[in-house]
Amino acid sequence: MFQSFDVTSTPSFGRSRVAALRGRFAALGVDGFLVPRADEYQGEYVPASAERLAWLTGFTGSAGCCLVTMREAVVFVDGRYVTQLAAQVDGDVFSPGDLVGEPPHLWLERHAPKGFRLGVDPWMQTSAEVEKLETALKRIDGMLVPLDDNPLDAVWTDRPAPPLGRVLIQPLEHAGASARDKIAAIAAAVAEKNVAAVILSDPSSVAWTFNIRGADVPHTPHPLSRALIRADGSAAIFLDKRKTGIEQEAYLTQLADMLPPGQFDEEMRALSRQGATILIDPDVAPQALASLIRSEGGTPVQAPDPARLPRACKNAAEIAGSARAHLQDGAAMVEFLAWLDAQPHGTVSEIAAVRRLEAARTAVGARMQNPLRDISFDTISGAGSNAAIIHYRVTTETDRPLEAGTMFLVDSGGQYLNGTTDITRTVAIGAVPDEQRRFFTRVLKGMIAISTARFPKGTRGIDLDPLARIALWKGGGDYAHGTGHGVGSYLSVHEGPQRISRAAMQELLPGMILSNEPGYYRPGAFGIRIENLIHVLGPEPVGDGDQPMLGFGTLTFCPIDTRLVVAELMTPEEIAWLDAYHAETREKIAPLLANDETRDWLTRATAPLS
Amino acid sequence: MFQSFDVTSTPSFGRSRVAALRGRFAALGVDGFLVPRADEYQGEYVPASAERLAWLTGFTGSAGCCLVTMREAVVFVDGRYVTQLAAQVDGDVFSPGDLVGEPPHLWLERHAPKGFRLGVDPWMQTSAEVEKLETALKRIDGMLVPLDDNPLDAVWTDRPAPPLGRVLIQPLEHAGASARDKIAAIAAAVAEKNVAAVILSDPSSVAWTFNIRGADVPHTPHPLSRALIRADGSAAIFLDKRKTGIEQEAYLTQLADMLPPGQFDEEMRALSRQGATILIDPDVAPQALASLIRSEGGTPVQAPDPARLPRACKNAAEIAGSARAHLQDGAAMVEFLAWLDAQPHGTVSEIAAVRRLEAARTAVGARMQNPLRDISFDTISGAGSNAAIIHYRVTTETDRPLEAGTMFLVDSGGQYLNGTTDITRTVAIGAVPDEQRRFFTRVLKGMIAISTARFPKGTRGIDLDPLARIALWKGGGDYAHGTGHGVGSYLSVHEGPQRISRAAMQELLPGMILSNEPGYYRPGAFGIRIENLIHVLGPEPVGDGDQPMLGFGTLTFCPIDTRLVVAELMTPEEIAWLDAYHAETREKIAPLLANDETRDWLTRATAPLS
Repeated sequence: MFQSFDVTSTPSFGRSRVAALRGRFAALGVDGFLVPRADEYQGEYVPASAERLAWLTGFTGSAGCCLVTMREAVVFVDGRYVTQLAAQVDGDVFSPGDLVGEPPHLWLERHAPKGFRLGVDPWMQTSAEVEKLETALKRIDGMLVPLDDNPLDAVWTDRPAPPLGRVLIQPLEHAGASARDKIAAIAAAVAEKNVAAVILSDPSSVAWTFNIRGADVPHTPHPLSRALIRADGSAAIFLDKRKTGIEQEAYLTQLADMLPPGQFDEEMRALSRQGATILIDPDVAPQALASLIRSEGGTPVQAPDPARLPRACKNAAEIAGSARAHLQDGAAMVEFLAWLDAQPHGTVSEIAAVRRLEAARTAVGARMQNPLRDISFDTISGAGSNAAIIHYRVTTETDRPLEAGTMFLVDSGGQYLNGTTDITRTVAIGAVPDEQRRFFTRVLKGMIAISTARFPKGTRGIDLDPLARIALWKGGGDYAHGTGHGVGSYLSVHEGPQRISRAAMQELLPGMILSNEPGYYRPGAFGIRIENLIHVLGPEPVGDGDQPMLGFGTLTFCPIDTRLVVAELMTPEEIAWLDAYHAETREKIAPLLANDETRDWLTRATAPLS
Repeated sequence: MFQSFDVTSTPSFGRSRVAALRGRFAALGVDGFLVPRADEYQGEYVPASAERLAWLTGFTGSAGCCLVTMREAVVFVDGRYVTQLAAQVDGDVFSPGDLVGEPPHLWLERHAPKGFRLGVDPWMQTSAEVEKLETALKRIDGMLVPLDDNPLDAVWTDRPAPPLGRVLIQPLEHAGASARDKIAAIAAAVAEKNVAAVILSDPSSVAWTFNIRGADVPHTPHPLSRALIRADGSAAIFLDKRKTGIEQEAYLTQLADMLPPGQFDEEMRALSRQGATILIDPDVAPQALASLIRSEGGTPVQAPDPARLPRACKNAAEIAGSARAHLQDGAAMVEFLAWLDAQPHGTVSEIAAVRRLEAARTAVGARMQNPLRDISFDTISGAGSNAAIIHYRVTTETDRPLEAGTMFLVDSGGQYLNGTTDITRTVAIGAVPDEQRRFFTRVLKGMIAISTARFPKGTRGIDLDPLARIALWKGGGDYAHGTGHGVGSYLSVHEGPQRISRAAMQELLPGMILSNEPGYYRPGAFGIRIENLIHVLGPEPVGDGDQPMLGFGTLTFCPIDTRLVVAELMTPEEIAWLDAYHAETREKIAPLLANDETRDWLTRATAPLS
């Protein structure tokens, strides 16, 4: 299993650990210290060695931070983690903070005493974050104190060693472009900006550029590493040698100098001493990096990571690989859903469903000789009212059976060598009330509206987002999340800059892979989400129009539960899309299934509505 | 007639006028001078006394500017005015510039010699504009030279006197709120910001706040004026006394000190000398005002005009007034369209149509004792391929007959005491090719999508814009303008901040009046636009939803040409909307018509599709 359901954290250590941390403040000359969730690589997942927030507080959520002063210890989380926080931390030691309404910089401005000195580890904070904190502290005549040595690490005596996940070369047949060509393209972009070099601070950018994958953190197969690419095309990769075998080392040293991560600072200093101008991305680069460059006579220039947009626009090999990965993943989903449908109502629990689904992915992967490398994220398995919790993660404490008369929401994905998948289906357990079926239908209408959209060059995600919502709006509902996020190629399941949301200003470009996942959530009652992955198709002529239009191709093939569709709410075009989608699903998935019983289920599940 | 079709300008004076202007440069110590279209009030229309750009160049378009150096005279216009510019100016004297691709500040940076000194009249340029010019000039070691005396005015010897349009009090029954209350609300907003006063630089804000209207410029009934409102509730209005009668003067002097416009500078100086902090809107306030405040020891603070948002959110009296104005205007449109339909094809010209339409508005206004005060803008009357020119203005040189087998587009509006209207209809002249009918239907689908939209609190215009386009996108077309603009209450037909477009970040609030006008334009062939005015309705429960939704009410009632509708492309819901709209139009407009013949036409024109 790639997922655990255990309640691992305990509130009992918080008191002594906070006390130990406070014990360092006087010597460091600070009045407080900020412990973020992120590590120095700013990724969605951190290795056990960087679980600082969880170690200090007991809180294991994926976003948050803790501000420790001599008198208070505030753990800032967003709305989805309020309940979890209360259960995981010692309420006598920690108080809850509002990460959205009153994040640390605002909290400091309002509650910290005049002249407050806040310690931070500048390798754990981005330039953008530090700027906010500094501005707030100035308003109360305080100051930010960057600390060379992290005081938490000093008191975390049994801290695990950093991960040494094995690095593998991503085959050219899946990557579709050689690392040599990618490095040359980035070097050309650097040269065009008239600067000396760029730092790739995002491990996913390093993985994409060098065509390597790793295993340092859960669910995202990038190796924790950084890289430097110079305008002349030469490069350096900062990667622990112990992660590579002979073959990988030989491969990487032909592309770049391979240096230990610990030598990163020294290399930056050397480059800066030559007065070099160096590109860094303020949203991923640690603030310490900009300081270091400046202090040694270099000039940091803030610009978006140059690997980000090329990585988002998948080439033909990546799209083809993703399509194959999705058919295999669709077969696993079908085997899971067919099994689920055959179980008596009330006998399957949320956790049992997750186990069975992962087993199906593993089995199909073995059968098709393309093993499941990891799941893309912890499966969201929500029965009845648990489905209304958008980021629900089942534990042994919250687990409940899938009961008759409710809907079951399952949002999951797999990491395969040829692609990353992410799919949500909401299915009926027995007869579901009509009101819930009406909302299911409205969500489906939104999902179809995105699938069938055509749009001119220049269209951004923000311009498509409302198409997914208008059917819900007309039914008196909405959903408090974006419609779609970017997805990597055997990399992070959450990738930028492409997305579909009310803030998505990035133009949609051919090759981008996105999720299409409208939903509806009635707290305490039921939750619905339907999600396919789609990719942007290049412009082509449409009907009798004068302007070629972009559009989407669908990657995900798996039945959508027609028992939940209220046909009268659908237009003939929507029904035609659903029937065609189901016909294609049957045609593509049936040959991949293990037995005729499942094939029969698929035939029934994909029967046309009309 | 409120509109002229004559070709009034001539290129013949350009040479001598530019020479005269250049003759002043040496004495002023400048290398060039920028002549904008706007005057010191930054409105859409300027009085004859401020037609500086037209006087200098011959160009009469509504947007542009001329940069005169010793060797060049570049007239910057946008794409819609390229042809008109070539026809109106002397090509030996003036060269065309690209207002969008290379506006004056970019032109200077690229083409002006190092050290270039650009003269501007700081009363004619906003702070935002000056900032751009200064940045560009700095890059070429040049500088901006604000000139106390406008050198163009010095050589424009036969310049007309400034307008003295009569000021009238807008009755409380139409305004819906007293000027006293509006001033108090603005003063309270000023006090809350901890500043001394605000300057209202936009004459429409002055007109709205004081409940007065004027007649200084065409089509927008605001008096050219400014006002000052202090935190303590006291106010001053800078308005030429000759514009008011005894009644108006008595009214205004009870609300504020009434001072001559020429005393504005002196009052600002006096206030600034007390060290006052003064709010100004950088997008409408002249740059000279900020300089003046600063030079006398005051502090200018940039913030949006505080009258702008309250003015956009119409109260119940304004909405009711607008609804009545629209019924009257709809009756005039119906009388015009019925007449047009009775004429043999090819016998009516674009100009004849404009004359007939204005005559209908005048006649209905007289009959209903609510006279047409002005048209809201010069009517766009486009036959056949002329309809593809989005901002087409017919002249005696471009006039053409409405021929069989084509569509005719007419975009027009009226100014009435109780409201401002703006309506576009595209109608068939004889049998129209099916391709054009398909595009008409797609435009109509977009217009209906906005009319029927429901949306949650917080929705912005940008979130609705795509709903108007998706049917066109799927048909291979789009339109290069926004979907809707704000409309005033017997004020400017183009009002902010509310709008519906791909850049519209203002939240839509109850009471806002907007246009809803998707279109489609095939250059050289045909053009389509369908426009109703709508107003935002407050949130109310919808269906079985959990969230109250905002929506739109329709103000415009006038038949949409069903001969151009391809019913197979419409959904049952769209047909139901159109039939209900036509039934309501018939019911509301029939009683207002002059005779049974027109009523019969209306009955036929509003027959249901289903």
